[in-house]
Amino acid sequence: MDISTVLGLAIGWGMVLIGMLLAAGGDIPLFIALFINQPSSAAITIVGSLGGVLINFPLELVTNLGKVLPKAALPDAKNTAYGELIEEMVEYATEARRNGVLALDAKTEEIEDEFIKNGIQLAVDGTAPEQIEEIMQLELESLQKRHETNQSVLTKWAELAPAFGMIGTLVGLIAMLANLADPDSIGPSMAIALITTMYGSMVANMVCIPLAGKLKERTKEESVRKEMIISGILAIQNGDNPRIVQQKLATYVPPAVKATLSTDEEDA
Amino acid sequence: MDISTVLGLAIGWGMVLIGMLLAAGGDIPLFIALFINQPSSAAITIVGSLGGVLINFPLELVTNLGKVLPKAALPDAKNTAYGELIEEMVEYATEARRNGVLALDAKTEEIEDEFIKNGIQLAVDGTAPEQIEEIMQLELESLQKRHETNQSVLTKWAELAPAFGMIGTLVGLIAMLANLADPDSIGPSMAIALITTMYGSMVANMVCIPLAGKLKERTKEESVRKEMIISGILAIQNGDNPRIVQQKLATYVPPAVKATLSTDEEDA
Amino acid sequence: MDISTVLGLAIGWGMVLIGMLLAAGGDIPLFIALFINQPSSAAITIVGSLGGVLINFPLELVTNLGKVLPKAALPDAKNTAYGELIEEMVEYATEARRNGVLALDAKTEEIEDEFIKNGIQLAVDGTAPEQIEEIMQLELESLQKRHETNQSVLTKWAELAPAFGMIGTLVGLIAMLANLADPDSIGPSMAIALITTMYGSMVANMVCIPLAGKLKERTKEESVRKEMIISGILAIQNGDNPRIVQQKLATYVPPAVKATLSTDEEDA
Amino acid sequence: MDISTVLGLAIGWGMVLIGMLLAAGGDIPLFIALFINQPSSAAITIVGSLGGVLINFPLELVTNLGKVLPKAALPDAKNTAYGELIEEMVEYATEARRNGVLALDAKTEEIEDEFIKNGIQLAVDGTAPEQIEEIMQLELESLQKRHETNQSVLTKWAELAPAFGMIGTLVGLIAMLANLADPDSIGPSMAIALITTMYGSMVANMVCIPLAGKLKERTKEESVRKEMIISGILAIQNGDNPRIVQQKLATYVPPAVKATLSTDEEDA
Amino acid sequence: MDISTVLGLAIGWGMVLIGMLLAAGGDIPLFIALFINQPSSAAITIVGSLGGVLINFPLELVTNLGKVLPKAALPDAKNTAYGELIEEMVEYATEARRNGVLALDAKTEEIEDEFIKNGIQLAVDGTAPEQIEEIMQLELESLQKRHETNQSVLTKWAELAPAFGMIGTLVGLIAMLANLADPDSIGPSMAIALITTMYGSMVANMVCIPLAGKLKERTKEESVRKEMIISGILAIQNGDNPRIVQQKLATYVPPAVKATLSTDEEDA
Repeated sequence: MDISTVLGLAIGWGMVLIGMLLAAGGDIPLFIALFINQPSSAAITIVGSLGGVLINFPLELVTNLGKVLPKAALPDAKNTAYGELIEEMVEYATEARRNGVLALDAKTEEIEDEFIKNGIQLAVDGTAPEQIEEIMQLELESLQKRHETNQSVLTKWAELAPAFGMIGTLVGLIAMLANLADPDSIGPSMAIALITTMYGSMVANMVCIPLAGKLKERTKEESVRKEMIISGILAIQNGDNPRIVQQKLATYVPPAVKATLSTDEEDA
Repeated sequence: MDISTVLGLAIGWGMVLIGMLLAAGGDIPLFIALFINQPSSAAITIVGSLGGVLINFPLELVTNLGKVLPKAALPDAKNTAYGELIEEMVEYATEARRNGVLALDAKTEEIEDEFIKNGIQLAVDGTAPEQIEEIMQLELESLQKRHETNQSVLTKWAELAPAFGMIGTLVGLIAMLANLADPDSIGPSMAIALITTMYGSMVANMVCIPLAGKLKERTKEESVRKEMIISGILAIQNGDNPRIVQQKLATYVPPAVKATLSTDEEDA
Repeated sequence: MDISTVLGLAIGWGMVLIGMLLAAGGDIPLFIALFINQPSSAAITIVGSLGGVLINFPLELVTNLGKVLPKAALPDAKNTAYGELIEEMVEYATEARRNGVLALDAKTEEIEDEFIKNGIQLAVDGTAPEQIEEIMQLELESLQKRHETNQSVLTKWAELAPAFGMIGTLVGLIAMLANLADPDSIGPSMAIALITTMYGSMVANMVCIPLAGKLKERTKEESVRKEMIISGILAIQNGDNPRIVQQKLATYVPPAVKATLSTDEEDA
Repeated sequence: MDISTVLGLAIGWGMVLIGMLLAAGGDIPLFIALFINQPSSAAITIVGSLGGVLINFPLELVTNLGKVLPKAALPDAKNTAYGELIEEMVEYATEARRNGVLALDAKTEEIEDEFIKNGIQLAVDGTAPEQIEEIMQLELESLQKRHETNQSVLTKWAELAPAFGMIGTLVGLIAMLANLADPDSIGPSMAIALITTMYGSMVANMVCIPLAGKLKERTKEESVRKEMIISGILAIQNGDNPRIVQQKLATYVPPAVKATLSTDEEDA
Repeated sequence: MDISTVLGLAIGWGMVLIGMLLAAGGDIPLFIALFINQPSSAAITIVGSLGGVLINFPLELVTNLGKVLPKAALPDAKNTAYGELIEEMVEYATEARRNGVLALDAKTEEIEDEFIKNGIQLAVDGTAPEQIEEIMQLELESLQKRHETNQSVLTKWAELAPAFGMIGTLVGLIAMLANLADPDSIGPSMAIALITTMYGSMVANMVCIPLAGKLKERTKEESVRKEMIISGILAIQNGDNPRIVQQKLATYVPPAVKATLSTDEEDA
């Protein structure tokens, strides 16, 4: 459970909602009334821009958001467990150095992580190091491209929502200006016209942009892990000293975490 | 038939049109009247910005849009048939490994895909691997550049349409402000001035930007397919084990599809 | 003669001028009067931003625009004559394969294109392939950089013209607001203030941006031709089979043109 | 102590605060009253956008700002002590050239800089040069990525703060327009609405953007130092002449500093 | 003396000042009065944004502008003296080819250009070509980075000045709207509020952006010269034919200049 996503959503939306209540000033919450009485404002901005997103992407990428978005709040803890990963790779390196790479064959069964398992399997099969690196790098790049595409659905929505909001406001303004019958209705009409611009900015800045950002951070975490694994597998196949393996992998790790690793190293 | 393009166009335009009807508020649809009675608004924005696009690109690139745009709604299903492609390439790899690359000569006749056919032909002719890779990569890059240029016609239109819309609005505002004879005409005059800004934003955000995005997705799909073919042909010529060929090509495939491939592999 | 540049200028400017006539509404063309009676509006926007361009670039780059701009409407037809170029290169390849590269020495005299001539001369002189590639690539990159710099003069003008237009509008607004003596003059004063913003947007979007775009397309065409020549010369020196030379060069060509090439190939 | 950060904050904020005092014109400081009486304006802009930042990044990256920001005003003087660094590296180079790289083992104990120490240790251990370069480069890139991520928290805040400011202004405008009961309240209501836009622009332009810029300069300084160290260690292991080592490292140094180095060189 | 910088400043500022005089319309120059009577407007925009620049960069980079800016108007003529440079390099190439690279040792004393001198010295010392290239490339990149940093001070100012201008305008608007005592003061108050936006746009578009552009052109000129020198030194050490040296260096030169070089070549 990633606390900052939930906290951030609570704080960001909380502040804006409190601001709305205070701005409305009366006992009837004005913005809730506007939201309910003017369903076309929300429709033109939120649903309309979602239509634009649908034109822009294949259907499965848009429906995929349902599977991808929860990752922003529920990260895979495995990705930042640098210590455990280094320990695991050093263990394989030690085994390979003592009894040869083939000795790892017995271990592949019990490896949980598919990416490590495939890498070790390739090394055990005697695949050339360049082939291993090529295959594993291709898989990492392929994953990064897929994640980027998922995030680009959100960033495109963040681009189209304010644009549809502005179109909504222009529609409202034009309708108002063309029928200036009653001067008293100018204020409320402009309020209604402006509300789509506000919705558009909220969809972009309070939902799409920061969630796309969090997903990008998740991709970075997973990429670092996978890069560490590739670097480790190649070092193991190369018969590197486990201490060198440990040191290479440690370079990927933030210094705060690295301090805790040093003690692990002494234990080993 | 790509459902999301059609659905997206229906939703996006539907929402905006409903918003227009509700905003106009009366029984006479205001915006249709504005569109018909003020043809210069649409002309200055849509036709004028198309003029800008014509200055910017050679004529054939602009007329080419007629051939390119349908691709957004009618994709080539072949490009995402990863399973069939991998099966086909593995079949050639198996043949080449058993009876030599020359044995593929007999097969070239029946290969439908021009890109695969040319690649196999080059391999059969004994062309050096670097030459094959160079020629096929050049062809892929050449295709990507052509597609990018086609998409840039749309993105340039998306850039110029709001600019011409703003020029139209400025023209309207200046004309209105210079002749403030009748205060009652200010409202309707401003409505007419603003309508070009609205058209410009609609052309950009409801047509050009999302359609250019969909075409970009199509190019990505075709590029992945062609990269898989290049990778496959080179592996076949290199005499790689069909299982390695299968594994290399599978790295390009999304995990959901990959799951279905594994079973195919067992059958093979 | 590039018809799309002329057509685009006619359409773009035509639409805006028609819009101006209709917006002015009377028999006296308002915008021509504004243009003539308010010369400072055009001066501050067009001449002022040209001053900014002069600060930004060496004088010869700015005066160079006079030589560069006609290229937008008058392209060099040679650059898109792919068929002739491939035929010519295949001819040299055939000659070099039959009688050796030195046999091309006799031909260099009659080669019109300087770039091909220099390349063949280098090959005949027995220069190492890497040296030839380095020299020819340097020349191509040098040309691309020069063209880019020329185009950047236009794109910088497109950036500064709206900025000077906005400065002009601010000057007009401030002068008007500071002397609100006569309420009746507000309208006309604002009209005059806004006109510089309109000029700025017109200079940018109806002249500079699309013309810079067309020049960029011209550079692309010339670059493709020069890349084909480099690729061809290296293949000729390498003693490649003329059919391979033909195939390599054909990868640079759009498919529509390639179809016509295939027949040529059969003739050869 | 970096004087320009403190000076810049004093000047930037000083000018704006003086402008506020003069603009308010009376003896009661208007903006302080607005800040205190309208806490929701500051809350929606500053706290709300901080919420958006929290959605966008893992919690530790946001809390990390507390540790990172002081670096903007308190740089690590070591990073720009080019002369001392070159002297130190030349000393090791001289020692290594006279008595072999192993002779540096005795020195590693007294080296304070962890990065130099690790590098020398790797060289003494007889690690292959490519391995040393790989490990040290990985560590440098890893540091740069971490710093970039920290800076991106600030640049994201600089992006979200004006957006939340605009949302706040829209909230205020809509509330005002919907209840146009008292025409006299229009002015003050619009003032309150606009204040969130002002706060947003101040957070972005007077805090986040320039501080992110200063941190980026710090990263550049640290990167140059680390690149010099890597270049030096590799030259030392390679047994380069100390003069070549000196000359290589001097290329990283600004000319003003280089002038002072030349005299050091003569001393050596 | 670079005429276009001076001319551009005169034209750009002249047009805006004439526009101001005409807009003010009376015999008292309104904008000079505003500038003198409202010193806080200029202070908040120009001095305030300079404060932001100081936060963003180390002090010496900002004070360095005093040394860097004159370069925009006073270029180093040496950098575009392509003919002389090629002649000089060809002379060394001829000498080195006749009497060996060591023969250049006698010449190093009289070489004025430090960069050429160092390069020749390295070649005479028998440094390996890769080492020479590395050292000279490092020096060029180091110079480019320093120049870029200097230019980024100006581009950052161009970013912050309009932002501080907008903050100033918001301050003025809020103060005016909060105290709508006298309707007659609305006009003049808005004029004063808008003046900071105008100053901000002038600082950015009439000073910072075009001057940064001119400095960038200077860097390009110096880079081309240094790249020619590196290419030349390496060719000389390699014992290349002086004609090849001439031809390689000539590729960097614009065609107009190249025409004059050809005759030089015949003389040689």
